[in-house]
Amino acid sequence: MINKLIAKIQKTGAPIVVGLDPMLNYIPEHIQKKAFAEYGETLEGAAEAIWQFNKEIVDKTYDLIPAVKPQIAMYEQFGIEGLKAYKKTIDYCKSKDLVVIGDIKRGDIGSTSAAYAVGHLGKVQVGSKCYVPFDEDFATVNPYLGSDGVKPFIEVCKEENKGLFILVKTSNPSSGEFQDQLVNGRPLYELVGEKVAEWGEDHMGGSGYSYIGAVVGATYPEMGAVLRKLMPKTFILVPGYGAQGGKGKDLVNFFNEDGLGAIVNSSRGIIAAYKQEKYAKFGAENFGDASRAAVEDMVADISGALNAR
Amino acid sequence: MINKLIAKIQKTGAPIVVGLDPMLNYIPEHIQKKAFAEYGETLEGAAEAIWQFNKEIVDKTYDLIPAVKPQIAMYEQFGIEGLKAYKKTIDYCKSKDLVVIGDIKRGDIGSTSAAYAVGHLGKVQVGSKCYVPFDEDFATVNPYLGSDGVKPFIEVCKEENKGLFILVKTSNPSSGEFQDQLVNGRPLYELVGEKVAEWGEDHMGGSGYSYIGAVVGATYPEMGAVLRKLMPKTFILVPGYGAQGGKGKDLVNFFNEDGLGAIVNSSRGIIAAYKQEKYAKFGAENFGDASRAAVEDMVADISGALNAR
Repeated sequence: MINKLIAKIQKTGAPIVVGLDPMLNYIPEHIQKKAFAEYGETLEGAAEAIWQFNKEIVDKTYDLIPAVKPQIAMYEQFGIEGLKAYKKTIDYCKSKDLVVIGDIKRGDIGSTSAAYAVGHLGKVQVGSKCYVPFDEDFATVNPYLGSDGVKPFIEVCKEENKGLFILVKTSNPSSGEFQDQLVNGRPLYELVGEKVAEWGEDHMGGSGYSYIGAVVGATYPEMGAVLRKLMPKTFILVPGYGAQGGKGKDLVNFFNEDGLGAIVNSSRGIIAAYKQEKYAKFGAENFGDASRAAVEDMVADISGALNAR
Repeated sequence: MINKLIAKIQKTGAPIVVGLDPMLNYIPEHIQKKAFAEYGETLEGAAEAIWQFNKEIVDKTYDLIPAVKPQIAMYEQFGIEGLKAYKKTIDYCKSKDLVVIGDIKRGDIGSTSAAYAVGHLGKVQVGSKCYVPFDEDFATVNPYLGSDGVKPFIEVCKEENKGLFILVKTSNPSSGEFQDQLVNGRPLYELVGEKVAEWGEDHMGGSGYSYIGAVVGATYPEMGAVLRKLMPKTFILVPGYGAQGGKGKDLVNFFNEDGLGAIVNSSRGIIAAYKQEKYAKFGAENFGDASRAAVEDMVADISGALNAR
């Protein structure tokens, strides 16, 4: 799957991923009204609004981008109905040949991580039959429990030709509270980064990159530069572009000389683009076109920064 | 909710929680057969088997115990249908007046943690209406992202009179890989423990304990003793008893002098008790009675150890 991701990045020229994290207040009035007219102001209605919103954004951007990253929390908050919209979104994106990164940040003790891995990336056995419950292509994983919490995910990736992005240094303001603590003079995130590189070494795609990747926030470009060198064969998923404060020029550090090695996520900046002054001309009715313009601008920003280095 | 948990522990004399983590291979043949006869060997069939299994265990043990801890991964692995069984289990346990600890180990950046918090412990707004999607009483939370990933959960607990157990030192073999790393001569889990105590201070129940608790594995009793002193007002959820290796005498360290401050989880040891030689006499047909006997033995083991100290 890392090979497919890289091939699609090369084809589109866009090392970016659109974060499908639909808060209800991002969703234009007319979409919400229609969904509520059909299903009422219910969890089902919210799920329908999310799904219609996602579908329009995907329809307007899928030819420009290699991948999407639905954040499961934004669906899970609406319970079972929300999770149905999550699954529907995954299936639709796959039908458009997009790589789907499930931003699930799961992680537990061994047997429990195995259950998450099977549910999200693999197959689950029921009697003599097998099912693929969620079927994302990649998943994000929290490493706090150490190797035996991560390895069951890796095992499933190996069997199913899928991949992971493991949290190393997250984009949020307080990520340093534990992640930056010095261990023998070096921050913890470097240790985690080394471990990710080690886990990844035996799990290489044909592309020179491992299918065991890392998450490093765009908001910490200097740390990104260090981690880039520490994990040369690790693909880095970079959240925090746009709304969280990261800009194209901050991102060059996350890429290797080959122009690969990183994929930058933007969520609100793309999916709620129509709410920005810059894209207001499209109007809420044409929010999908605003998202398309925002994708084009983001690709230009990042490509420009990469070409200028 | 911490007050209710403590009142129920005092009433039952059982500082234990039954982990409802139903792997399909724990579920007796006759339950599986019946579920598959009705729904086929499908995800729905698996969910029905899980639900019937849980129901019997709850029916046979609810009067002896204060709380249950369903592990969401064991349901999530069966996709949407599995998550419906998770929700059904929560609702049924609450109808039996059990405290429900959702073992979800979620944790993300602020706005995303807020979505998880709302979905699991709070209410979600849809237009002018409010819904309670999963409605657990407590949830487990992963602290790797720091304060701003944890605080949205705390805010919802405050509003909704609910609680958390935050991972400090987990029970699995490789938990030390990152959690034991020394920061200024002290292991990281102590720093996390201090932070949990700090987060908890402003969020005290009337009982002398905070509703912001910690998770510390039974498999590390010496670390448990240190953490007990470091977090005197923190309730500790202690996994790893029984099948993972913890025993009653290892557990006294986790309790305060008042006999409170900890609640010990056993999953496989209780729910799959009928598979142990010790409880084989019950037979698979009476697996619920085997679970009841295992609960009684566990309570005796822990009470005995507490009385002997």
